Amino acid sequence: MKFSQSKTNKGVTERDFSVTCQDRTIPGVLWTPEARSEPTPLVLIGHGGSGHKREDHLVSLARRFVRHNGISAVTIDGPFHGDRASDEVKNESVNKTLRRLNGEDIVDKMVEDWKATLDALQKLPEIGIARVGYWGLSMGTMFGVPLVAAEPRIEVAVLGLMGPIGGFDRLIRDAPNVTCPLLFLQQWDDELIPREKSCELFDAIGGRDRRLHSNPGPHSAVPQEEFFNTQAFLARHLSPASD
Amino acid sequence: MKFSQSKTNKGVTERDFSVTCQDRTIPGVLWTPEARSEPTPLVLIGHGGSGHKREDHLVSLARRFVRHNGISAVTIDGPFHGDRASDEVKNESVNKTLRRLNGEDIVDKMVEDWKATLDALQKLPEIGIARVGYWGLSMGTMFGVPLVAAEPRIEVAVLGLMGPIGGFDRLIRDAPNVTCPLLFLQQWDDELIPREKSCELFDAIGGRDRRLHSNPGPHSAVPQEEFFNTQAFLARHLSPASD
Repeated sequence: MKFSQSKTNKGVTERDFSVTCQDRTIPGVLWTPEARSEPTPLVLIGHGGSGHKREDHLVSLARRFVRHNGISAVTIDGPFHGDRASDEVKNESVNKTLRRLNGEDIVDKMVEDWKATLDALQKLPEIGIARVGYWGLSMGTMFGVPLVAAEPRIEVAVLGLMGPIGGFDRLIRDAPNVTCPLLFLQQWDDELIPREKSCELFDAIGGRDRRLHSNPGPHSAVPQEEFFNTQAFLARHLSPASD
Repeated sequence: MKFSQSKTNKGVTERDFSVTCQDRTIPGVLWTPEARSEPTPLVLIGHGGSGHKREDHLVSLARRFVRHNGISAVTIDGPFHGDRASDEVKNESVNKTLRRLNGEDIVDKMVEDWKATLDALQKLPEIGIARVGYWGLSMGTMFGVPLVAAEPRIEVAVLGLMGPIGGFDRLIRDAPNVTCPLLFLQQWDDELIPREKSCELFDAIGGRDRRLHSNPGPHSAVPQEEFFNTQAFLARHLSPASD
């Protein structure tokens, strides 16, 4: 694990890093409480399709976890996204990029990438082996369901805006192995993921401790209120005293 | 409006009352902050089928509104329920009682009963014309949708566990006139109200500012967490400073 840039602002230290996993280099950003040397709970944040590890709303979310809940947060670029996009990918349409994700090996590799990232982070004194949660919508759920299903260290998750469409049937196979407490988001008028498809995924989740929140509007119109809900939900499980 | 019994416990004054509406006497309970003489926001709480105005979970909810949010709360018995049940009704099956509710005039009368209760309460100095919300699930939504649709004084509502089944089609007719901020609850495995029926009602609601929360389990298994959510939601709208 290599750190490059680091800056601290209002009590939050933000560090760029890279982790090596097999033949791949995974670029990420880590947010931790300033000058912290004891373990903190950690939230893995998976970005959405055509997004990247530094999207504004993810940076805001990560900083709120640190400032309000004393929880660290990490994002990494997904395959073909952010710093992992080749010039060819950067110049193609979003839909073409998203079609690149439709393969078993892509999902398996992203699960490995997250595991390698988590392995590396847990060696830091400010992360250690404290509790771990996952937050990821849309593409962050496409990878998140297989990850949460395969990773026992993840104790709580926020997922949503996704279902078994366009060949992503693996979601339904992996969902029964998602058994941790879960908050699942749905957009009532989602133009990309039909309501019955996100319901199908929620229904297939194996855990009993789950709840679905649905809000009006299209795919990308998750209201700010719901972002606060997801933060409070994860904080309640990862750092009960902070809530 | 006539008050009978009154008692105060941990800062909450609880008073039994009755209000007359045309040929009917409506029995209710009012919870207000102790020794309060300035207006407080008010939540109208509608009980569920086979329940009554003093059900444990409603009393707890009402007391929490007063203690944590400075919001008063009121319940009244629904038709054929609680103190409004004749001996004949008391001795019949729940299903038979519920079938009695299936008539336009029953719904209209309950809407009138709530309006008469609100008229009377607003004459009290401790209620006045402060903001009003509605909270009612199941039968509390069967009557609540027509009430919220018809009553402009209600500014925010919690509804759910109901849909257009068994002839209650009026819900779908009135739902477009429910335009206030709304939190709608659904039980994912509801054995009384099929999921698609509660979705149909939620879909028919006229307001844009609405959200659906769905939890696993049967009709009567709404988790305590969700009760807290409904309380926080109403408090946020009725008494922003208390949240």
